[in-house]
Amino acid sequence: MAVVDIQQVLLQLFVLISFAMAAAVVCKLVKVPTVIGEILVGIIIGNTGLFGALQLGTDAQVFEVFKQLGVIFLLFAVGLVTPFSELRKVGKTAFIVASLGVVVPFIGGFLFMTVLGYGFIPAMFVAAAMVATSVGITARVIGDMGLSDAIESRVIIGAAVIDDVLGMLVLAMVVGIAGGSGSDIAQTAIVAIEGVIFVIAVIIIGGMVIPKVRKVREKKVDVEHPIRTKSPLLSPLPIALVVCFGLSYVAGTFGLAAIIGSFLAGMAFAEFQDRWPCKEKFEPINEFLVPFFFIFVGVQVQLSSFNDILLLGLALTALAIVTKIIGCGLGARSLGGKSAMIVGVGMAPRGEVGLIVATIGLGMGQVTNVTYSIVVFMSLATTLAAPAMLSYAFKAKIKKKHIEKHIEKEDDDGQLKFRDR
Amino acid sequence: MAVVDIQQVLLQLFVLISFAMAAAVVCKLVKVPTVIGEILVGIIIGNTGLFGALQLGTDAQVFEVFKQLGVIFLLFAVGLVTPFSELRKVGKTAFIVASLGVVVPFIGGFLFMTVLGYGFIPAMFVAAAMVATSVGITARVIGDMGLSDAIESRVIIGAAVIDDVLGMLVLAMVVGIAGGSGSDIAQTAIVAIEGVIFVIAVIIIGGMVIPKVRKVREKKVDVEHPIRTKSPLLSPLPIALVVCFGLSYVAGTFGLAAIIGSFLAGMAFAEFQDRWPCKEKFEPINEFLVPFFFIFVGVQVQLSSFNDILLLGLALTALAIVTKIIGCGLGARSLGGKSAMIVGVGMAPRGEVGLIVATIGLGMGQVTNVTYSIVVFMSLATTLAAPAMLSYAFKAKIKKKHIEKHIEKEDDDGQLKFRDR
Repeated sequence: MAVVDIQQVLLQLFVLISFAMAAAVVCKLVKVPTVIGEILVGIIIGNTGLFGALQLGTDAQVFEVFKQLGVIFLLFAVGLVTPFSELRKVGKTAFIVASLGVVVPFIGGFLFMTVLGYGFIPAMFVAAAMVATSVGITARVIGDMGLSDAIESRVIIGAAVIDDVLGMLVLAMVVGIAGGSGSDIAQTAIVAIEGVIFVIAVIIIGGMVIPKVRKVREKKVDVEHPIRTKSPLLSPLPIALVVCFGLSYVAGTFGLAAIIGSFLAGMAFAEFQDRWPCKEKFEPINEFLVPFFFIFVGVQVQLSSFNDILLLGLALTALAIVTKIIGCGLGARSLGGKSAMIVGVGMAPRGEVGLIVATIGLGMGQVTNVTYSIVVFMSLATTLAAPAMLSYAFKAKIKKKHIEKHIEKEDDDGQLKFRDR
Repeated sequence: MAVVDIQQVLLQLFVLISFAMAAAVVCKLVKVPTVIGEILVGIIIGNTGLFGALQLGTDAQVFEVFKQLGVIFLLFAVGLVTPFSELRKVGKTAFIVASLGVVVPFIGGFLFMTVLGYGFIPAMFVAAAMVATSVGITARVIGDMGLSDAIESRVIIGAAVIDDVLGMLVLAMVVGIAGGSGSDIAQTAIVAIEGVIFVIAVIIIGGMVIPKVRKVREKKVDVEHPIRTKSPLLSPLPIALVVCFGLSYVAGTFGLAAIIGSFLAGMAFAEFQDRWPCKEKFEPINEFLVPFFFIFVGVQVQLSSFNDILLLGLALTALAIVTKIIGCGLGARSLGGKSAMIVGVGMAPRGEVGLIVATIGLGMGQVTNVTYSIVVFMSLATTLAAPAMLSYAFKAKIKKKHIEKHIEKEDDDGQLKFRDR
C-alpha cells in the first residue's frame, strides 16, 4: 500500500492555492479571465525550481486526480445550464459548426504540413491535433463572464461535444492508418461509431424519457409521501456525484473522454434542477478543484523547447485559429456575423485535447519531438489567446447591442453579417 | 511520474458514493447517525472481496488524501461554529474535562492490563490508546443533530482539542519510556511542550489580535474603497482554504495532528463569518469528502482477528467508555447531570486516534499482535457505540427540557446532577 506524506500534500495545496489566489487578484485587476492566471501559475511552477522544491512529482497521482476531477466537475456544471430541450434548439447549428470546425482545420493542417515537406502520417497527426476543441477553457471564460445561457455559448458547448466525438473519430482514423493493419481500422471505426451512438442515445433518451419519469415521480410523491419533499431521504449532491461519476465512467468504457460523460450527466441533472438543486452545491466544489486542472495544464508546458520552434509554432497557431473561425463561423452564419465570430473564436482553443493527440503520435513513434513541440505550442497558444479573444468578441457584441438599442435597430442582420466577416 | 488510471478512480468513486448514499438512506430510516452507516460500508468493503475487486489498493495514495482532507475540512467546519470568544467561555470547564478525561482512562487502562498480567510497557501503550478522543465522530453526530452550538458540544470540542494535546503528551511520554534513552524523553517532552504552546498561542493571539485587525480593515475599506465590498477582489473560499491548509501544515511541523491546525483555522475564520462567509461553501465540499474519512476508517478493520479477542475487547471497550464518562463527567459536573453525561459520552469514541497509538506500539515491537487487535477493537467499538449513546443522551436532555418547560423548572440543577449520575 502506497503511503502518502500528508504534511507534504498540505504544503503543496497551501502553495498552489495561494498562487492561484494571487493570480486571480492580478487577473481581476487587469480584467482578463482568471483561467489565464492559473495556467501561467502552472507554467511558472513547471519551468522553475518550484516543481522540484514542492516535490509535486512524488504526489503526481493525487494531483492528476484533482486535475481530472476539476475538469469533470467543470463540464458537469456546464451541462447543468444546458438542459436537453435547450440543446435540441441549437442542435442543427451546433452540428454544422462542429462538422465544418473539424473539416476546415483538418484540411488546413494537413496541407500546411505537406507543403512544409512532412510525410503523410506526421501531417495526418498534426491535422488531427488541429481538430478537437478544448471546451474547458471556453466554458470557464463564459462562466467567468456570466454568459452561460447566451445562444452563442450553447452553440459552442453543443458543438464542442459533437466536435469531441468527431475529433475522436478523426484520431481513431489516423491512429488506424498509422497502425497500418486493416483490422485495426475496422476496430477503431467500431469504437468511434459506438461513441457516436452513445452520445446520441443519451441525448435522445434523456430528452424523451426524463420528462416522463419526472411526471410519474411527482405524482407518486404528491400522493404517497406529501411530507417527503421537506425532508428528503436522498440528498441532491450524492445523487449528482453518483450520476456524474457513473456516466463519466461509462463514457470511458466507450472509448470517449470522461468529460463527455460528466457533461451529459450535467445535462440530465439540469432537468431536475427544481427537484434536486445542486448548481449551488457544485460551485464551491468547483472553486476548490477546477484551478488544479488549469494549473497542471500549465505545469506540463516545457518552455525550454520553444526556442527552436517559435516561428513554425506561431504559424500553426495562426492557422489553427483562422481555420476554426472560418469553419465554425461558416457553420454559425445563421446566428449573424458577430455571433458567428464569437462561435469561431470560442471553438479555437485546443488545450489538453491537442496535447493528447500529440502525445499519442509521439508514443507511436509517428511524429518527431520537434513536430510534437510545435503541436504543444499551438495547443497552448490557442488556449492562451482564446479567452482574451472570446471576451473581446463577446464585449464587442454586447456593446453593439447597447448601440443598437439607442439607434433603435437601424441595422438588419444581413448587413451585420457582411460587415463583420 | 506515477500514472493514475482515471477510469478506475471514477468507478471507485461511483461505487463508494453509491454505497454511502444507500447507507445514509438506511440510517435515516432507522434513525441512527449516517456516520455509522459509512463506517459499516467501509467494514464491508474492507472485509469482503470488494476491496480487491475495486482495486482500492492501487489508488491508496489518492484515497488517503481524500480521507485526510475529509477530516481536516470536517474539523475546519467545527471550528467555524466555535469562535475564540465562545471557546474562552467554556475554556475552564473544557480544560478540566480534558484533564480528568485523560487521567482516569489512563489509570484505568494501565491497571486493567497490569491485573491481566501484561508487562509495564505494553500496559502503558494500551493506557495511552485509551486517552485520546476522536473528535471527528462526535463532531459529525453533533452536526447531524444540528446541535453544534449547544454548550455541551462546545465543551466536548474544546476539551477534545486540549485532550488531543494532552494525549500526544502522554504518547510522547510512553514512546520516550519505551525508547529507553534519556535524551529521547527530553526531546519528546520538548515536542509536546511546543505543541501546547502552539495551540495556546494561536488561541490567545487569535482571540486578541483578530478583533483589532477587523476594526482596522473595516475602517480602511469603508474610507478608501466603498465599492469593494460588493465585488471583492478576494473570494472567501480560497482564503479559507489557504488558512486551513497553512495552519494544518504548521500544526504538523509542531508534531501535532493536522486536524488541530484546521480546527484552529476554522475558529479564526469564525470571527470573519460576516465578512468572508464560507460556512455554506464548506458544506457541499464536506458532503463530498467527509464520507471518505469514515469509509476508510471502516476499511482498515480486520474482522477475522476479532474471534480470538472478542471477550477482552468488549471488557476494554466497557472500561474505555466508563472511564471517560467518569473522568469527563466529573469535569463537566458544573453543567448539570444530563449535560455531564452528554460530555462524558461525547468524549468516549477513540476512533483513528486509538488506532494510531496502537500502530505506533506495534511498529516499535512493544505490543503484540493480539494486544494491537484488542486496542483496534476498543477504538472501533467506542466509535460505533458513541454516536447512538450520544444521540440518546442529547435526546434525553432535550425531552427533559420540554418537560421542564411545562412544569416551569421545578427541578434545580443540584437535584438533576445527583439523579442522573
